[in-house]
Amino acid sequence: MMLDQIELMRRLSISGTSKIVLLIMDGLGDLPGANGLTPLEAARTPNLDRLASQGICALSTPVAPGITPGSGPGHLGLFGYDPLDWDIGRGVLEALGIDFPLGPDDLAARGNFCTIDPATGHITDRRAGRIPSDVGQRLVAKLNQIRLPGVEAIARPVKEYRFVLVLRGPGLADGLTETDPQQTGVPPLPVAALRPEAAHAADLLNRWLAEARTLLADAYPANSLNLRGLAKAPAIPQMPDVYKMKMAAIATYPMYRGIARLVGMDILDAGETLDDEVAALRRAWTEYDFFFFHVKKTDSNGEDGNFEGKTAVIEQVDEWIPAIVELQPDVLVVTGDHSTPCALQAHSWHELPVLLWSQVNRPDRVERFGERACMAGGLGHIRHKDLMPLMMAHAGRLTKYGA
Amino acid sequence: MMLDQIELMRRLSISGTSKIVLLIMDGLGDLPGANGLTPLEAARTPNLDRLASQGICALSTPVAPGITPGSGPGHLGLFGYDPLDWDIGRGVLEALGIDFPLGPDDLAARGNFCTIDPATGHITDRRAGRIPSDVGQRLVAKLNQIRLPGVEAIARPVKEYRFVLVLRGPGLADGLTETDPQQTGVPPLPVAALRPEAAHAADLLNRWLAEARTLLADAYPANSLNLRGLAKAPAIPQMPDVYKMKMAAIATYPMYRGIARLVGMDILDAGETLDDEVAALRRAWTEYDFFFFHVKKTDSNGEDGNFEGKTAVIEQVDEWIPAIVELQPDVLVVTGDHSTPCALQAHSWHELPVLLWSQVNRPDRVERFGERACMAGGLGHIRHKDLMPLMMAHAGRLTKYGA
Repeated sequence: MMLDQIELMRRLSISGTSKIVLLIMDGLGDLPGANGLTPLEAARTPNLDRLASQGICALSTPVAPGITPGSGPGHLGLFGYDPLDWDIGRGVLEALGIDFPLGPDDLAARGNFCTIDPATGHITDRRAGRIPSDVGQRLVAKLNQIRLPGVEAIARPVKEYRFVLVLRGPGLADGLTETDPQQTGVPPLPVAALRPEAAHAADLLNRWLAEARTLLADAYPANSLNLRGLAKAPAIPQMPDVYKMKMAAIATYPMYRGIARLVGMDILDAGETLDDEVAALRRAWTEYDFFFFHVKKTDSNGEDGNFEGKTAVIEQVDEWIPAIVELQPDVLVVTGDHSTPCALQAHSWHELPVLLWSQVNRPDRVERFGERACMAGGLGHIRHKDLMPLMMAHAGRLTKYGA
Repeated sequence: MMLDQIELMRRLSISGTSKIVLLIMDGLGDLPGANGLTPLEAARTPNLDRLASQGICALSTPVAPGITPGSGPGHLGLFGYDPLDWDIGRGVLEALGIDFPLGPDDLAARGNFCTIDPATGHITDRRAGRIPSDVGQRLVAKLNQIRLPGVEAIARPVKEYRFVLVLRGPGLADGLTETDPQQTGVPPLPVAALRPEAAHAADLLNRWLAEARTLLADAYPANSLNLRGLAKAPAIPQMPDVYKMKMAAIATYPMYRGIARLVGMDILDAGETLDDEVAALRRAWTEYDFFFFHVKKTDSNGEDGNFEGKTAVIEQVDEWIPAIVELQPDVLVVTGDHSTPCALQAHSWHELPVLLWSQVNRPDRVERFGERACMAGGLGHIRHKDLMPLMMAHAGRLTKYGA
């Protein structure tokens, strides 16, 4: 395809007054449990089932067949990007995950405190004995004393031995190696530039590392540190420009707010519960055209292998569906970013059930919202990145291609 | 897509102890016969049906819709390559078809003995009166007397008027024209280089042709010859490197061993019958991670238009399924490289029924293994090249893409 999908959307999208809700249950897809049903199939979901029977269903592959996506690629697909074209580095995701407002000039890294043997300089514990979070916070405060020429160096605690380092300033390119040798008994590696433009950043980072290690010398077991996944946020096309919509994200977890911010959405105050999220949707309803509404706990329960918990979250979402429908969205899509089967307790490659509900969809014969019911969905098997064009079309927000 | 599938697999594949069996019934797909059923639908296959009902099914397109593949592209697709990206020349396939161990420096050609009128030098029969194979063999022995500077010239008989010529040595590039004018009443053409790097090979081949024609002058009706499909084996990524598996091929026909060797598999002694092949699988079970298990006779029967014969081969395979399942593969896929409908007595473009069976597949509602049953398969319509990623995923051999 010579015209890439984003450019095609930029060319065909038109403004309007219609409203779209993309309701994501994180990690929704699953496998049958002991009862022979998936959590979604087992859940009592009369409202989702009604939408499925009026709407059109599909199974959707987040990235490509067999590929298990992380949260970044899973959501980029939902937002209309080909996740293989846009690689978000670990440092960037880590920064997004603590709600750090990453700018286009920022270079981010995931940091790990570690233990070294002061005599040899060799790493003895890559996680510094998993120090408690309050110790990590205290050490990060120390790191923020470091000053570098021409750029800011901002450290932020994450959890236990993990932190984020952001260098902010002009002339910082990525293409940098990690310092973590991924084994003990050897010293940390220096940061090296993989391309000439990154040499300046490598110098600054090595200087920062030297100062940091001096500051930590007495902080055994966290007497050293490593930097991983050094990356800048990709200069990704901004969704509001591409789709000509005012777009808002409602998400209770920082990672998803971060990804939404990266693609140009406004971040609403979503509170902490599903009730808070629906309240946020109601408050902002007149102000935006598109709402990314993210439910986290389906995934958390999947990761814990908690079949009943996941089923209960789905039933809870179902109970809120009438409140969302009452707002009269022109298009409502319900799906997940990736599967998180309880049996695997991890993300997986399995396709996601999708329902698309609007006044102008061609209905299929699916009567229930579930993985196996969607195998007969009228949209067949699609990719996540197909969803944005489909939502735009059903919202009357795409003009004709060609005469 | 910036990251091509092979590179993505190279990046995401991880080693492990799980085992994969890819069971290929050559030319499996078919059309309904007089009884309204295809050979696969007509066959009694309780074991395949059980796998289909526990596993997940699909219909798969070998290359692209409507495209009938030869054996090369059909298998390259199954092995995870886009057959449109990797063109295997006829000379290379011909060499693989006689189990010739083709190396990366080898230039291969399909040779045809032909008849010329000694007075005019014009071709009078492009197949030399279809001389018997033993005559062909004797003439090929003569051709092996030819010596060329700096390279070896190796001729091998194939069948009747057909042989293989391999030039082996440094500096041989392909991009060469054929000598066969595809008509009688004109002389053979010289080999010409289509690019400058191929000039050296063209010179050597024209020299070899001149000497060969002198040696054959008295061998009427095989008093001349032509070379076609001059090609080197493509420098194709080797599967064991890409997928981090020890991989073995079990195939009774040389062509399929040849293709498997080309992509880096070890070739096991497979004997001649299906029983021999299963014995070979058992013997090598602990030593390999991946087995390509090839059954030829479904295709041979399809080419002969022998509906009952094809049905019987499928039933024979079904009887061996419990022996394969008993070895406890983590993933078992059953499909074909292409369709060979009895009614057409030739390869065709029709999709292939696929079943994928593992402990972690999402089951669908397919209860029988057959072309029409698989139209409702949970994986929908896929391409052959999707199978390797799907098998790898179900075998737990792919790590997450992105964080």
